[in-house]
Amino acid sequence: MDSEIELVCGAFSSDAEKSAQAGKELHLLPERVYGSYKEMMRREAELPVDERMDFVSIVTPNHLHFAPAKLALENGFHVVLDKPMTFDLNEAKELEAVIEQSGKYFCLTHTYTGYPMVKEARQQVLSGKFGTIRKIYVEYPQGWLSNFLESNDNKQAAWRTDPTKSGIAGAMGDIGTHAFNLAEYVSGLKTTKLCADINIVVEGRKLDDDGAVLLKYNNGASGVLLATQVAAGEENNIKIRVYGEKGGIEWKQEDPNTLLVKWLDKPTEVWRAGTGYLSSVAAHNCRTPAGHPEGYLEAFANHYRNFALCVQAQLAGEKPKAEWLDFPGYEDGLRGMLFIEKVIESGKSDAKWISMEV
Amino acid sequence: MDSEIELVCGAFSSDAEKSAQAGKELHLLPERVYGSYKEMMRREAELPVDERMDFVSIVTPNHLHFAPAKLALENGFHVVLDKPMTFDLNEAKELEAVIEQSGKYFCLTHTYTGYPMVKEARQQVLSGKFGTIRKIYVEYPQGWLSNFLESNDNKQAAWRTDPTKSGIAGAMGDIGTHAFNLAEYVSGLKTTKLCADINIVVEGRKLDDDGAVLLKYNNGASGVLLATQVAAGEENNIKIRVYGEKGGIEWKQEDPNTLLVKWLDKPTEVWRAGTGYLSSVAAHNCRTPAGHPEGYLEAFANHYRNFALCVQAQLAGEKPKAEWLDFPGYEDGLRGMLFIEKVIESGKSDAKWISMEV
Amino acid sequence: MDSEIELVCGAFSSDAEKSAQAGKELHLLPERVYGSYKEMMRREAELPVDERMDFVSIVTPNHLHFAPAKLALENGFHVVLDKPMTFDLNEAKELEAVIEQSGKYFCLTHTYTGYPMVKEARQQVLSGKFGTIRKIYVEYPQGWLSNFLESNDNKQAAWRTDPTKSGIAGAMGDIGTHAFNLAEYVSGLKTTKLCADINIVVEGRKLDDDGAVLLKYNNGASGVLLATQVAAGEENNIKIRVYGEKGGIEWKQEDPNTLLVKWLDKPTEVWRAGTGYLSSVAAHNCRTPAGHPEGYLEAFANHYRNFALCVQAQLAGEKPKAEWLDFPGYEDGLRGMLFIEKVIESGKSDAKWISMEV
Amino acid sequence: MDSEIELVCGAFSSDAEKSAQAGKELHLLPERVYGSYKEMMRREAELPVDERMDFVSIVTPNHLHFAPAKLALENGFHVVLDKPMTFDLNEAKELEAVIEQSGKYFCLTHTYTGYPMVKEARQQVLSGKFGTIRKIYVEYPQGWLSNFLESNDNKQAAWRTDPTKSGIAGAMGDIGTHAFNLAEYVSGLKTTKLCADINIVVEGRKLDDDGAVLLKYNNGASGVLLATQVAAGEENNIKIRVYGEKGGIEWKQEDPNTLLVKWLDKPTEVWRAGTGYLSSVAAHNCRTPAGHPEGYLEAFANHYRNFALCVQAQLAGEKPKAEWLDFPGYEDGLRGMLFIEKVIESGKSDAKWISMEV
Repeated sequence: MDSEIELVCGAFSSDAEKSAQAGKELHLLPERVYGSYKEMMRREAELPVDERMDFVSIVTPNHLHFAPAKLALENGFHVVLDKPMTFDLNEAKELEAVIEQSGKYFCLTHTYTGYPMVKEARQQVLSGKFGTIRKIYVEYPQGWLSNFLESNDNKQAAWRTDPTKSGIAGAMGDIGTHAFNLAEYVSGLKTTKLCADINIVVEGRKLDDDGAVLLKYNNGASGVLLATQVAAGEENNIKIRVYGEKGGIEWKQEDPNTLLVKWLDKPTEVWRAGTGYLSSVAAHNCRTPAGHPEGYLEAFANHYRNFALCVQAQLAGEKPKAEWLDFPGYEDGLRGMLFIEKVIESGKSDAKWISMEV
Repeated sequence: MDSEIELVCGAFSSDAEKSAQAGKELHLLPERVYGSYKEMMRREAELPVDERMDFVSIVTPNHLHFAPAKLALENGFHVVLDKPMTFDLNEAKELEAVIEQSGKYFCLTHTYTGYPMVKEARQQVLSGKFGTIRKIYVEYPQGWLSNFLESNDNKQAAWRTDPTKSGIAGAMGDIGTHAFNLAEYVSGLKTTKLCADINIVVEGRKLDDDGAVLLKYNNGASGVLLATQVAAGEENNIKIRVYGEKGGIEWKQEDPNTLLVKWLDKPTEVWRAGTGYLSSVAAHNCRTPAGHPEGYLEAFANHYRNFALCVQAQLAGEKPKAEWLDFPGYEDGLRGMLFIEKVIESGKSDAKWISMEV
Repeated sequence: MDSEIELVCGAFSSDAEKSAQAGKELHLLPERVYGSYKEMMRREAELPVDERMDFVSIVTPNHLHFAPAKLALENGFHVVLDKPMTFDLNEAKELEAVIEQSGKYFCLTHTYTGYPMVKEARQQVLSGKFGTIRKIYVEYPQGWLSNFLESNDNKQAAWRTDPTKSGIAGAMGDIGTHAFNLAEYVSGLKTTKLCADINIVVEGRKLDDDGAVLLKYNNGASGVLLATQVAAGEENNIKIRVYGEKGGIEWKQEDPNTLLVKWLDKPTEVWRAGTGYLSSVAAHNCRTPAGHPEGYLEAFANHYRNFALCVQAQLAGEKPKAEWLDFPGYEDGLRGMLFIEKVIESGKSDAKWISMEV
Repeated sequence: MDSEIELVCGAFSSDAEKSAQAGKELHLLPERVYGSYKEMMRREAELPVDERMDFVSIVTPNHLHFAPAKLALENGFHVVLDKPMTFDLNEAKELEAVIEQSGKYFCLTHTYTGYPMVKEARQQVLSGKFGTIRKIYVEYPQGWLSNFLESNDNKQAAWRTDPTKSGIAGAMGDIGTHAFNLAEYVSGLKTTKLCADINIVVEGRKLDDDGAVLLKYNNGASGVLLATQVAAGEENNIKIRVYGEKGGIEWKQEDPNTLLVKWLDKPTEVWRAGTGYLSSVAAHNCRTPAGHPEGYLEAFANHYRNFALCVQAQLAGEKPKAEWLDFPGYEDGLRGMLFIEKVIESGKSDAKWISMEV
């Protein structure tokens, strides 16, 4: 989208023929379309430095995150990885060590923090203009799993509800982690304990498809996180509200280019993407003039672009700009895996509060 | 508003002079403006049946609900009472007995169930068109108690945060009960257990000003209730979402004449007050053509009007129509007092779930 | 609604029996329910000053505005009259003279200028904060006359589309005048010329049901007025936008308690009814705390209340407050009748611009 | 965005060095970065068929549309061209002939008809479900030219307000043509006559920055088009409403993934991009699941993608699919140039209606 990244190779299926076909449709050179990620890592690493790929993007189900990411890093490639980071918390910790040792960039695609007005929200909250933060409400309601889709041929539903591929969590891993990450990103706070009601609503399902979580943050604030995949009629309306002593913010994906800034004693302000009054971090992540809406793909692309700018800087031996470094990394990934472990534990527990301390 | 009710007498202050002055401004006959509710009940009861007041409306702080309501009923007057019903659950149970014995009408002013589109929501949910109800989200965010207003001369803030006047709950009693009632009204379900995070956010405050509650309902559905008075920048945006297997509804006070009806696999529908396609119950509670908005006062007036129609019917020895009986009564009041007791208990408890069984 | 006005008498039908029945339902004394407006004016005028009615409210079709209004004024009663003021411009001019001579208050019920946020809009525009006003867009789309309803037994449709009752205009008289009045009220400007496209869309209809008007104002600003009754699916969403050099305002009836204040180079502000930051004129016309919506009936009641406060002041020999005088009067009525005459003339003309000069 | 198009060459400035620099930043081969469009056309045409560019995209100011487009077509390249099509109507007619003779594809980037929900709107209107269309309201309010920006160093403002570069129209050419095109696209109707109020609001400006147009369509419907660049506080909120006998549609760019479908006698429906119930034409132009918003760049890319699919089909000797052909072409371009000529003529005329007949 921004002419910063070119797709040069890929392993698109564990079936070599299918992979070759997919590569062809993407206009790749046949010799750089591989039958497995292992082959790709090995063969690309053998290419001269200025010919080989610079980074790899891993978009497999959760149980296939750790191994290819580790292998890529060990072969000297930067990594972009889908969330949640790994199959379980142990893998995440192991991967953390690999990343730190590698000196490579690592990006976890928590898409929603790529929206310019989410970045603007964080800037305003961190600026202190609202005073101490007291309340966080974050929610991610979906309805698409209202039926037992995994009994049909729905591939997306199948792996997401399969504990051997998704891990211990369903909705909480798939969308709960997004909401959790969004809340910590915008507020700059860390969750210290939680109390969860975790449900399997649709009969026959193996993993949670619904949950609600009470949260406590490290500054004393409290919060509520809602994530469900059985709110029939809802699409992907992730939404966050953060309140401080003097005011707060509200943002939702269904109107992503708008940030509501609320005040105790004056009119709510409607901050808009693409305008001249935004913070430099937000402005850096806008592409179009105000009123020409940007969306999900642009938010996603912002992470890729910032990641690519950092990779390019490293290649050029330069220091990346501060705003380029504003993409989710392994710290976010670890927090997410911890959340998954604790929220599922809480769902099964009779104790009210479960500590998030590591 | 509907020419169904005429104010004929009153006790407007425990200071007889102030009461007299208030009565004068309301154009009442001086001999029917009283210095205390006791005087009013006694003197009105002495008037001939066709001259005395038909019912009394009690709008005092919570600790002054029980005694005047009881006295009114015992003197043969129907009663309209502000919520929460009483100072504590014991009073509520005692009042229940008095009401049942009296044969008089009793209305508790849970204003929000007076909105026509809330009534429409209930009709649609109860019709079964959405299948079994699975999720309920209800919230009542306010911001007006973000500061320690009770230290100033703010009368509204003062009694609401004073345990000797409000009872054991602050926000939960004042607005949490509204949200609780709205959820049970629209869904037709009963809460069976709850888990609450109850907070005093503003330093020095004596009662809760914030809380979040996980809920379980008698059909297996789960829910979340948010009520806060420290969401700086929020006004009175009580909102409810209910989801069943096939779809659900969304309503919020900031756009009270609209009911969103959502479906798993077809477009959301925007149902509007004053239109020709509403249920008879909703239609009965509309006054203006579609697009001419009705608001809070009309919702309030709907309860009064329906109550008055029932009272008139009783006076005329007639049977009230079904839609007239659709105003909140003592069952709602008892549920609300039970909620207050249990939610505060839960807030202090280390156990996760507190039963709502009586 | 505000306990400022009591209904004491009435003539509810030209059929004396029907009128008596209507009066009974309104709990009026039988001797003060009249069979005609003439009888009412005469008999009320014969009552002692402190017993007779103070003012009369005339809510008949347009062809029955002039005569009762004139008679009322001549008998010493203040008058509240439905818009448009009269059947034609000549009657309006004659009535103007009667009003001026009478020394009585006259209120024309242009409901929409009774909304507090419309009053706030006017205050802000007149304050000069937006610089010189350049553009006005006002629209009133309805859909209810999309079919040939007057062929059925629809009384509202029948008289409004009947030239012997409505006058020379249909939609332009019924709702176009509201839009016209709203624009002049909020902007403080006067229309100097106009160019109209006036249509009869539904076959068989005798008066216009649709129109669009280009407008020029006395400060050089231009505007557009849309009024239609055949926009199938629209309710009563009258809306106005006014733009000056630096910013502007937007208000619409479907969200009447919100005023958007827009700026060239900073975030839009969401001003809300019932808040503490409003102008005194707007605040005077609010009844509920912010977030508890007020609607059409309250806007209507604001005109009545302000009118009643002025009448009471006159009765008490006192001077009315400035904000009480802010209700539409005969100047608005005359402007509206002039608009009707000119807009219909323009609709038939091949000339582009028609002057609004009197 | 869709991996259908690769940038292979370019002429990015009339200054060869600047062009070379721009090409470098876009990772182009130096030998395919040219110092002028003439050089590019000639040199690319000399390359072997499978190496040369397939089509050219022309994004220069209006006065530099005709010559490069003609040259490209004559050298056998397909063309994507910015709107308005040419500097004046004569050039447009000449270009039409060139295109028809060339047998090449021609796309005019009226971005807004690339939105999936605009395509859905057209499908629904053309299906006849709303009955005969009666009213069209289309508007494009901007505020960015509220000040005399062309006096500063604002390049965008400078050429757009310069008659030697823009042609006879300012706002009407820049955004009025978009609104005009959108109305004819969604309704499937043709404008037959118009009456325009055209203004230069900002002192010193050479071309119109504001206008309003009354429209008549070939089926008897009437419409209104508003386009302004001095509505301070507005961004790019192009919006269209179309009403038929039974209902209609509303779409606006600020919420581009939503199409409101309104009905005379049932609830408004909220149709959403990415859902399963859309027409095949709309569905073909969606990229993300419902609720993940798409925006301006995706709408723009839809035209490019459909154009590229047609070009690929032609290269492969195949017939393009019907939905691929749904991008704006030279017929739209000609209509736009005709609109510009007539609307400016009308602005200067004392006659009310100006015919759009060619």
